[in-house]
Amino acid sequence: MTYSERVRHLLASSHASEGDTVRLKAGGKEHSGILMPHHEFSHPDVIVIKLKSGYNIGVMVDDSFELKVEVKAQERSPKPKAPSKGSDLPIISFLGTGGTIASYVDYRTGAVHPALKAEELVATVPELTEICKMRSKVVFSIFSENMDVAHWQELAGAVAEELNSGVEGVIIPHGTDTLGFTSAALSFMLGEVPRPVVLVGAQRSSDRPSSDSYGNLLSAARFCVNANAAGIFVLMHGETSDTCAHVHRGTKVRKMHASRRDAFRSMNAVPAAILDLNGGLEMTAQCHPKNDVKVQVDTRMEPNVGLLHFYPGLSAEAVSRFAEGLRGLVIAGTGLGHVSKDLVKGLKILTSQGMTVVMTTQCLEGRVNLNVYDTGRDLLSAGVISGEDMLPETALVKLMWVLGRTDDKDKVRELMLTNLRGEFSERREL
Amino acid sequence: MTYSERVRHLLASSHASEGDTVRLKAGGKEHSGILMPHHEFSHPDVIVIKLKSGYNIGVMVDDSFELKVEVKAQERSPKPKAPSKGSDLPIISFLGTGGTIASYVDYRTGAVHPALKAEELVATVPELTEICKMRSKVVFSIFSENMDVAHWQELAGAVAEELNSGVEGVIIPHGTDTLGFTSAALSFMLGEVPRPVVLVGAQRSSDRPSSDSYGNLLSAARFCVNANAAGIFVLMHGETSDTCAHVHRGTKVRKMHASRRDAFRSMNAVPAAILDLNGGLEMTAQCHPKNDVKVQVDTRMEPNVGLLHFYPGLSAEAVSRFAEGLRGLVIAGTGLGHVSKDLVKGLKILTSQGMTVVMTTQCLEGRVNLNVYDTGRDLLSAGVISGEDMLPETALVKLMWVLGRTDDKDKVRELMLTNLRGEFSERREL
Repeated sequence: MTYSERVRHLLASSHASEGDTVRLKAGGKEHSGILMPHHEFSHPDVIVIKLKSGYNIGVMVDDSFELKVEVKAQERSPKPKAPSKGSDLPIISFLGTGGTIASYVDYRTGAVHPALKAEELVATVPELTEICKMRSKVVFSIFSENMDVAHWQELAGAVAEELNSGVEGVIIPHGTDTLGFTSAALSFMLGEVPRPVVLVGAQRSSDRPSSDSYGNLLSAARFCVNANAAGIFVLMHGETSDTCAHVHRGTKVRKMHASRRDAFRSMNAVPAAILDLNGGLEMTAQCHPKNDVKVQVDTRMEPNVGLLHFYPGLSAEAVSRFAEGLRGLVIAGTGLGHVSKDLVKGLKILTSQGMTVVMTTQCLEGRVNLNVYDTGRDLLSAGVISGEDMLPETALVKLMWVLGRTDDKDKVRELMLTNLRGEFSERREL
Repeated sequence: MTYSERVRHLLASSHASEGDTVRLKAGGKEHSGILMPHHEFSHPDVIVIKLKSGYNIGVMVDDSFELKVEVKAQERSPKPKAPSKGSDLPIISFLGTGGTIASYVDYRTGAVHPALKAEELVATVPELTEICKMRSKVVFSIFSENMDVAHWQELAGAVAEELNSGVEGVIIPHGTDTLGFTSAALSFMLGEVPRPVVLVGAQRSSDRPSSDSYGNLLSAARFCVNANAAGIFVLMHGETSDTCAHVHRGTKVRKMHASRRDAFRSMNAVPAAILDLNGGLEMTAQCHPKNDVKVQVDTRMEPNVGLLHFYPGLSAEAVSRFAEGLRGLVIAGTGLGHVSKDLVKGLKILTSQGMTVVMTTQCLEGRVNLNVYDTGRDLLSAGVISGEDMLPETALVKLMWVLGRTDDKDKVRELMLTNLRGEFSERREL
């Protein structure tokens, strides 16, 4: 979609172009900001401006609408370089990986580019320079649905290097699609870390009304500096409105909405922290404090591990074909961790052939319990390992990691049933 | 676990046995009810009694605890048969299928049996006789993880028969594990129905403290009689506390917790109705009113349809092996409905071989949109059909149903993109 005839006429008659600083009057309110390019998903009658705060708003053009150009883009001086605020500010490393958050808006022209340099990315959030000194590196730049085990390994190595160089935190802008998988992978590969590693994404790119890119990056930097927390975290919008960001533990987080900004949720866990967008920080769960440990990164992974969700009619034969060449298989069963009788038999054959099979629940919340019903007890007899209250995705990543370091069956079982990175919640007494 | 020494001693010295009516004093409160058998998952110091309301409570035995037998089980007269309240009460059919809700407690002995006759099941909820005349049939009695397409077909036939005989509603006690699959299958197979068909489950069997069996059955009957609503619904507890039940549309509901009583949620939709457990009814969404249509059941299904959830590292080869012999495949992609580049190519090969591929989102909430990013556009070019905001499970069942009646590619696409049974929510303008 493009602008409507009405908006095109208005912009032409006001001599307003993308990148100009404009003043709008609409519905009794006044706004001043930089005129953004029209976004293909915006309403044809909506004009988007970037406010001084960096936050974008969309304004509907109606009969009461007025627009005046205050500064033409070409007359405005280029954005000054990030001022050096002295050596007292802590250093944060930004490791770029791609995704929606990595879209970079040129303040002068208003045009949108993929951010190839992390400097460009952080340049969209000038307040960062008041919080930290920035160091940046683009590890790769891809849509996150194209990430695989090799990308996780490369990223883990880069994070370890930054942490061991003594930075106050590492922020990883990342596509949201597989953000939870990557945060789980980093959690297992990095082990104990001295400082926060915060993966951060955006559900709406920085040229769109209500982009969450700005707020999430700023909150991530505040969390790194102000929270006494070491670990792997995911930070995303916490509510539909622009009130707060939630910090989730890397092994307990899942994308639970295709498009909403508050899509990410801690599953079977409370968020680790809540940051209001004005800078306030509330720690909502106990975190490992910052410390001086040297990171011992261990990126060994067995990529030949699969994940299947059970459904009525899923045959043992289909599962067996799928599992060909795999060393491990995670099942997301129904309810407490169930599959059909037919499939219990099929899984027993797989385990007898040496495959590790782990049961999780497709309910996503709650805990696998293979001791309540006959089906569960039959699964235990078939050699299936309980995934406790791990997310299916986290169980997949953990099993890759565990099989990457041992093929001793007892050791695999022991590691899968041990809480290594906060991937289990405390078991409550029934 | 069994009772503790303390409780065993107390019961022996009071001459109390299972099935006796007892009066308890504990923590300053008094309760009277039938002593239930000890449940293996109950705390060793907890005694469970069934109150007169039919609701079970567990009471911890402590130093202040007192217990007195009021009526011995053998002295109590057998439970009178359901009184015939005259012909003015509407008829509800109960079609048994098995599951946790189908556990039946003998009021006199307190012993727990699987309910083989639906009369036994409804006998646990005497209030039902004040709401309706009951007709009952056990269609089968299995754990719902063992249901498959053939069970859905048999059940749909049985429901159609009952509806066409003129009953006021059909209630289907069902295991919770695959309740949402069955409700979707019945929705497609039955088409337009004249009265409500309510699938109802229980997360805790009727011998356990806080069983939801009683409340859910009673609410289902109240809904059938008091709501002017025709359609396929799922009724389950609405909150953690015993305040209300939620009625969900059969195509929009999913089990979202392994064990909680309020595990079921309407996804991308509001519940159709809320019933408070005292009998109040609030319709929260528009429902098709009761009518006089004759049900034209159509149980044709293509069972060779699969469902796969995408994850980093899922190879096109594994998908292709899994899809061998299938006519349709539903993918639960990431975010707006994405998979890796490698898999886009793999899916293109499958569609070129004649397979129908439908994309849903593993976020579960929100809507697939294949027009936002390159990955989505590539999927459309590969012939993949958008599942809109359908649940992956509902898309699977729908695709089975659609492929059961046509192999015309255009017709399949058209049907998949048409809202047939409320499986899509209204698309909102972006």
